[in-house]
Amino acid sequence: MKTERAKVKIIPLGGIDEIGKNLTVIEYKEDIVIVDCGLKFPDVDMYGVDIVIPDISYLVKKQDKIRGIFLTHGHEDHIGALPYFLKQINVPIYGTKLTIGIVETKLREHGLLATTELVRVKPKDKVKLQNVTVEFIKTNHSIADSVAIAIHTPLGVVLHTGDFKIDHTPIDGGRTDFARLAELGRKGVLVMMADSTNVEKPGYTRSESIVGETLQRLFGKAKGRIIVATFASNIHRVQQIINAAEMYGKKVAVSGRSMENILQVAIELGYLNMEKDTLITIDQTAKYNNEDIVIITTGSQGEPMSALSRMAASEHRKITIVEGDTVILSATPIPGNEKHVAKVINQLCKKGAEVVYGSDQNVHVSGHACQEELKLIQTIVRPKFFIPVHGEYRHLKQHAELAVKMGLGERNYVLPETGDVIEITRNLIKKNGSVTSGQILVDGLGVGDVGHIVLRDRKHLSQDGILTVVVTLDRESASVIAGPDIISRGFVYVRESEGLMDEARDIVKEVLSECEENKITDWATIKGKIRDELRNYLYEKTKRKPMILPIIMEI
Amino acid sequence: MKTERAKVKIIPLGGIDEIGKNLTVIEYKEDIVIVDCGLKFPDVDMYGVDIVIPDISYLVKKQDKIRGIFLTHGHEDHIGALPYFLKQINVPIYGTKLTIGIVETKLREHGLLATTELVRVKPKDKVKLQNVTVEFIKTNHSIADSVAIAIHTPLGVVLHTGDFKIDHTPIDGGRTDFARLAELGRKGVLVMMADSTNVEKPGYTRSESIVGETLQRLFGKAKGRIIVATFASNIHRVQQIINAAEMYGKKVAVSGRSMENILQVAIELGYLNMEKDTLITIDQTAKYNNEDIVIITTGSQGEPMSALSRMAASEHRKITIVEGDTVILSATPIPGNEKHVAKVINQLCKKGAEVVYGSDQNVHVSGHACQEELKLIQTIVRPKFFIPVHGEYRHLKQHAELAVKMGLGERNYVLPETGDVIEITRNLIKKNGSVTSGQILVDGLGVGDVGHIVLRDRKHLSQDGILTVVVTLDRESASVIAGPDIISRGFVYVRESEGLMDEARDIVKEVLSECEENKITDWATIKGKIRDELRNYLYEKTKRKPMILPIIMEI
Repeated sequence: MKTERAKVKIIPLGGIDEIGKNLTVIEYKEDIVIVDCGLKFPDVDMYGVDIVIPDISYLVKKQDKIRGIFLTHGHEDHIGALPYFLKQINVPIYGTKLTIGIVETKLREHGLLATTELVRVKPKDKVKLQNVTVEFIKTNHSIADSVAIAIHTPLGVVLHTGDFKIDHTPIDGGRTDFARLAELGRKGVLVMMADSTNVEKPGYTRSESIVGETLQRLFGKAKGRIIVATFASNIHRVQQIINAAEMYGKKVAVSGRSMENILQVAIELGYLNMEKDTLITIDQTAKYNNEDIVIITTGSQGEPMSALSRMAASEHRKITIVEGDTVILSATPIPGNEKHVAKVINQLCKKGAEVVYGSDQNVHVSGHACQEELKLIQTIVRPKFFIPVHGEYRHLKQHAELAVKMGLGERNYVLPETGDVIEITRNLIKKNGSVTSGQILVDGLGVGDVGHIVLRDRKHLSQDGILTVVVTLDRESASVIAGPDIISRGFVYVRESEGLMDEARDIVKEVLSECEENKITDWATIKGKIRDELRNYLYEKTKRKPMILPIIMEI
Repeated sequence: MKTERAKVKIIPLGGIDEIGKNLTVIEYKEDIVIVDCGLKFPDVDMYGVDIVIPDISYLVKKQDKIRGIFLTHGHEDHIGALPYFLKQINVPIYGTKLTIGIVETKLREHGLLATTELVRVKPKDKVKLQNVTVEFIKTNHSIADSVAIAIHTPLGVVLHTGDFKIDHTPIDGGRTDFARLAELGRKGVLVMMADSTNVEKPGYTRSESIVGETLQRLFGKAKGRIIVATFASNIHRVQQIINAAEMYGKKVAVSGRSMENILQVAIELGYLNMEKDTLITIDQTAKYNNEDIVIITTGSQGEPMSALSRMAASEHRKITIVEGDTVILSATPIPGNEKHVAKVINQLCKKGAEVVYGSDQNVHVSGHACQEELKLIQTIVRPKFFIPVHGEYRHLKQHAELAVKMGLGERNYVLPETGDVIEITRNLIKKNGSVTSGQILVDGLGVGDVGHIVLRDRKHLSQDGILTVVVTLDRESASVIAGPDIISRGFVYVRESEGLMDEARDIVKEVLSECEENKITDWATIKGKIRDELRNYLYEKTKRKPMILPIIMEI
């Protein structure tokens, strides 16, 4: 009997050819290590869907081997699917202090805190499992406390960068641990997975410190109140806003639920430094002059229900935008949000606010590495094999090309797809089959009950509405006892379309009397005829195709 | 009796605080001149709407004074509402050769060609009306044959730039007529309206010629077939693609209905120069080697039904993307289209095509003037008064600020809103009231029959679907004769939710028997109770809020 050669298996269950829903499975012998467990926000054609999570049915079957979920940082696309995962498989969660702090809040909301083992780690910590050891390595990103994860196997090191940028002047003083990465590189990294998000962008991502300098300049210039919108989780950005406020003796208030939640965690865990009287409540702002107030808020993506959108639309209960306000959008629109953000900017301008936004204003920097940083990581780590991750297909392809230009062998990378089983030995990387994978749609409490048919119907309804036809028929003769009645929603404005509806009813009556004459008493046939005749009539009259729903009641 | 002082009235009925639907009314004494008559594509929340056109009810009342519609160029946002306008008000249309050629195709489709007076003009032409004279002035834009329009009134010149850029090396050799603009400026321009689209962008818009150079380089390098996607109406771009193809002895085929239509017009009118055997049909491409073929196609915005999207999704009947194809996206995504475009790029990459896209590749240039060009126009024209047009509110505001920095008086501009009546005398510009205005939604054949309620219902339906409850009751006693039946669409996948539906039916039964016991026979009350009880139950069970439509039939 031949013994199977030892190999590392890497199975991405998300984060491939998409932005979000990051989850990578790494297997060696009896150990399964999971890196991240994120959600994705729905595509435009996923009508009514709240979030999208990875399909983990492959893991359900292997749960006894899973040693834990190892988190790189606390963004939703890396931790957001945890509650759904934990409801199916209970495993320990490892992460740095802030990451675990954010996860705690999330699990508390889902009633999962008591039953979940949370393990706080620090950069340089190592967790020994049965056959492998997991190590955490300090990186920089647009949230504090981010790490790369190195899995030491007898075949070599498997390195996952997580989301990262290289920031030589980060806000907390903690720089990427190049020394450790170089040491691993020297000893030999078997395979590296690296963040491809910004691979299309040449040069370097600017340092977070740049934003601080801009804020100080803008705060010095502002004549009235200052409102800064940014991502709630960007604690370093919030720190810089607080620093700039304190520099000019201004008070800081916070608006927006997610901003309040994350700030509370960050303050409790010691991630924010400020004088003890800097922070005030929104209600307390009334006691100060406008020029002494800074408000930190959510809504930098123009989300319709966010605090900033409500201020812009005069729908915020406590904050009214006035002439002289300076509003700083410390973020760039995520693809798909451009129009929402533009709407908010226009509304704020109309109210007389000075709005500062746009990539050339230095009010925001990216959290992801650009080309020169990706090259630097390749040079330092010198992995034998490479798997580009965290990006759409075009990003992954460009990232592989970049690695090959840096000297990686043409056969030493794979372009992964979700669910691929990537097998790695000392000398070879190859795909070997695939496992069940995909996206699970979450809508309200329903996990996976919204599928293709429901979405197709929602799309149809959204375009042309629905027309319901109800009639009560005699069970035997199919003669009409009551009706037909026609009720429409989302089709036409009924009061102006009475003629159309009357004619539609006549058409249904005709179909019914024809059926009765021809002794057709099969309800399905009658419904089919009603649907066909109405569809043709309505399309001819309106060039629209509402959903037509015939309902027959029998007596 | 005092005689009213002569004044010019300018009333924008579209193109203000929005991109598209451009229509400006200029009145002097008995003459009404209309500049452009465009459509707008629907916002994301206008579910199912095809296009949006301006409300022209103000003009309907004044049609005897309207001397004509004067077109600046042939883009949809400047001519697309013409068929709807002409069905209400029949007036002559003035435009340059290509513009009128495109309008002809459009009016033919709508059966309006025979009844409409189309007048072909050339740059420098003047059209004398009762009290004013309209003059056409050569400009550059991303479509051939664009003009600015100067209306000579006894009070001075009213100048509308139309959409423009300043291109010193345009493809047709025809540069902006600076001499005439300067001459008007020297004599005194009363008021200028100018394109604000690119006012946020510093510097100059690059020349169209740049794209030609890039295409030549890419065509020389390509090993296989070349596919270029661009806007159908950008005749100069198409000319440059043809030039590059001929340089390397390649044949050119065209795919996509709008591309075929506009090319036909352009060739007939002499706007495209090529050797007589360059153009072949898609079917004929089979006879050539891939490296000898260039395909010009629509779909540069990732529109789901476009030729390029169908190629990317392997749904094109005649063109299959193969390894070695080079696909050039000669356009940048319009805000809102980014995700569609990204999807197409990813699909093409997966099929092995080399895809060239992005603003740093010089495969596309804008058709609108940037800051330095806008300053140049202010310097040359030196208008007394200024109205920024064609832009969202923030653009208009920035454009006005730019003009003030150039020396315009602080009181010499207005920030217009749609429907504003802007009155101008020799010494004063001011708003004086407003007229009926707004946006009319076109859905299929319906013009204006989709309003707030229909859109609200479509949105609701798109999020959570609909649940229809039908029951037949006795007219007197309200006792149940048949039903209740529940049918849902777009709510849950019914086969997996039988329990939920059964319980929902039980709840309705309970409501009905309670009503019967309490002798409630008012249908509206019964429906209200059904709706309330079901809504609460479903929200508790699913956290979703489908539309609930109770229907009672009575016997």
